[in-house]
Amino acid sequence: MRYLHGEPHQLPGNRTSLAGYSARHFVFGVADGVATLTLNRPERKNPLTFDSYAELRDLFRELAFADDVKAVVLTGAGENFCSGGDVHDIIGPLTRLDMPGLLAFTRMTGDVVKAMRACPQPVVAAIDGVCAGAGSMLALGSDIRFGTARSKTAFLFTRVGLAGCDMGACALLPRVIGQGRAAELLYTGRSMAGEEGERWGFFNRLCAPEELLAEAQSFAAALASGPTFAHGMTKKMLQQEWNMGVDEAIEAEAQAQAICMATNDFHRAYHAFVAKEKPHFEGD
Amino acid sequence: MRYLHGEPHQLPGNRTSLAGYSARHFVFGVADGVATLTLNRPERKNPLTFDSYAELRDLFRELAFADDVKAVVLTGAGENFCSGGDVHDIIGPLTRLDMPGLLAFTRMTGDVVKAMRACPQPVVAAIDGVCAGAGSMLALGSDIRFGTARSKTAFLFTRVGLAGCDMGACALLPRVIGQGRAAELLYTGRSMAGEEGERWGFFNRLCAPEELLAEAQSFAAALASGPTFAHGMTKKMLQQEWNMGVDEAIEAEAQAQAICMATNDFHRAYHAFVAKEKPHFEGD
Amino acid sequence: MRYLHGEPHQLPGNRTSLAGYSARHFVFGVADGVATLTLNRPERKNPLTFDSYAELRDLFRELAFADDVKAVVLTGAGENFCSGGDVHDIIGPLTRLDMPGLLAFTRMTGDVVKAMRACPQPVVAAIDGVCAGAGSMLALGSDIRFGTARSKTAFLFTRVGLAGCDMGACALLPRVIGQGRAAELLYTGRSMAGEEGERWGFFNRLCAPEELLAEAQSFAAALASGPTFAHGMTKKMLQQEWNMGVDEAIEAEAQAQAICMATNDFHRAYHAFVAKEKPHFEGD
Repeated sequence: MRYLHGEPHQLPGNRTSLAGYSARHFVFGVADGVATLTLNRPERKNPLTFDSYAELRDLFRELAFADDVKAVVLTGAGENFCSGGDVHDIIGPLTRLDMPGLLAFTRMTGDVVKAMRACPQPVVAAIDGVCAGAGSMLALGSDIRFGTARSKTAFLFTRVGLAGCDMGACALLPRVIGQGRAAELLYTGRSMAGEEGERWGFFNRLCAPEELLAEAQSFAAALASGPTFAHGMTKKMLQQEWNMGVDEAIEAEAQAQAICMATNDFHRAYHAFVAKEKPHFEGD
Repeated sequence: MRYLHGEPHQLPGNRTSLAGYSARHFVFGVADGVATLTLNRPERKNPLTFDSYAELRDLFRELAFADDVKAVVLTGAGENFCSGGDVHDIIGPLTRLDMPGLLAFTRMTGDVVKAMRACPQPVVAAIDGVCAGAGSMLALGSDIRFGTARSKTAFLFTRVGLAGCDMGACALLPRVIGQGRAAELLYTGRSMAGEEGERWGFFNRLCAPEELLAEAQSFAAALASGPTFAHGMTKKMLQQEWNMGVDEAIEAEAQAQAICMATNDFHRAYHAFVAKEKPHFEGD
Repeated sequence: MRYLHGEPHQLPGNRTSLAGYSARHFVFGVADGVATLTLNRPERKNPLTFDSYAELRDLFRELAFADDVKAVVLTGAGENFCSGGDVHDIIGPLTRLDMPGLLAFTRMTGDVVKAMRACPQPVVAAIDGVCAGAGSMLALGSDIRFGTARSKTAFLFTRVGLAGCDMGACALLPRVIGQGRAAELLYTGRSMAGEEGERWGFFNRLCAPEELLAEAQSFAAALASGPTFAHGMTKKMLQQEWNMGVDEAIEAEAQAQAICMATNDFHRAYHAFVAKEKPHFEGD
């Protein structure tokens, strides 16, 4: 973990703590089990750099083991989500790289999405203003997306002479909004408006800009209250069954759910129900 | 077929008759080729039990051979569809099972969906009121869903400490309503309202509650009028192509449709067209 | 290429020119890199015949090498798109074919869709009036669909005693409009209205009938202005990732995008950006 600032605090059972992690290339804080990750170069609409890609990749990888983070909110500072790879910091240098260098870069960006999909915490993106290029892929790699009416989401790779296939876009976007709409956005790079995005299923909800972050954090906090082991299994199976036949997926779920039925949280829920109480989940 | 009441009536060619089948754990009747299966414990909103799961599984398996049932309507008595696995009859006993016992249970529930997808008859779910947990999966395992504005569909496994991956939910729901919306419903267990469900493609149609069953039966009767062999092939290929590449799916359809072109129903349709008559399909 | 009128003009590097191609069974013309292919038997609502299927297949196959066509518009003459396989010219003869003959036919029609998906040019369907049977599959095999409010799209195979699995319908339609809505259209053969189609994601846009073709051509011309190599890669990956796991798709995109980053068009876009100019793409 080159880019993580120091070693995470090790706990027993291959678990770590990330609450005290001090990010270098964005802002990271944990409260009540919810980590809020804020891209924070608002004067440039929060572009990504080689360093911030790498730190995102490493942090999401580390989240797989972090025992004190139960859900993640991903957002941007200053009324914009993320403008994508910076033209001067990234596009320029890329035009001077050889093929192994180019592939190392595209694999790094793809690894960010892979790590976002692989960590057990649900990721809630809170998207206002500009959400473009690699920024749109951070949104798409999240589990849940809250937007605003004024948000503008653009898969604009084509505008810099590139293809729409970037960081998994051609696989993920059709499953979220349908193949026909995805094709249009990926070929043209045009902006999807907030209302359009809600209508198409890209956004789970549109919020007033001033309430966006609080709503996303509140939604994440509800997930963080558990059952978190089960949520991690839901996320894993949504990923795992992507490319299975229906019968194989049903068998995979039979196994996954049997595991969840052996957890204490399942027993807690039953006993709470019998006692007419609200269950208190503990994640084991 | 432990749970089927007696042996089905055997007909030549591995075909059976289910018209006279007397169900133990729900109500089952056949009229004009349409079987109506009614979950029938209205005082408890039609929960499922170990026995009713098993009878559903066995009955849908037997439908694969039933010559006198051409379409199925699945519904619930008393203004509710199905409240899912009963907390006292199912959840309680599950908390006392060992792992092989848990897996035997989750496989049984998954087998219900597998059998619903494998029988050649289109299944039309008529959904009013509560549609929750395993009940929502019976709805999702159906081919067509008619709902009401007041219906409440909740994949509420998470509320009892379990994961959203139950009976195929993580595979099926994203294909019906999109990956983002599916993730929200599966993580939160929140109710999807009828209108929302129609807008998202979960419901094919919303009906007035008093007309729901009749509309579903009428729709099913239209399918039962044929071409039933072709409908069975449509259902099979929707299942079969779930996990194929596009080119492989196109070849699979070339074979499947060539089979249908060798049926008498295809010839009947052509001759009816030439004679300017309505075709009469016979299922061969 | 039996059905192509003469040999295409060969250019170096396995590239050919199709600008001068004179179609036999429809109208084909190329302007500014956009080929417009017009089904042209308006008195019969532009049905397909054995010959036109074969010429479509061969032409789309040849487009894979055509250097002077950068996007395709597919439309029909006389206020209708396409009525599908002609009852007298196709259905009648099919009723007299043996099984190898039937399979040869269904493979030919499937090969049209395969070729439409395999050529690098985005295909924009401009759909007014009747869009039925194999015509609906030409629409579905396109990348982008523009419709009109009065258009009627029907996957009506079931009406002639056949299954909904034709030319890839059971694979493609669920990914475009969702599994539940696709099942209804394929089982019933009912018409999808224009507005419904837009709401469901089948149509990217509804146009006034008198502006439909011009809007489709204008959209295609924008794509033809490039970056065309990248657009071809977007199309290829939308196809290629259809049946991959998410992680495999992300790696596939890392490779595909690295290739695009080695193109001159990517460099042109960067230098245009730095110079505050509009990039001029050349497709290399």
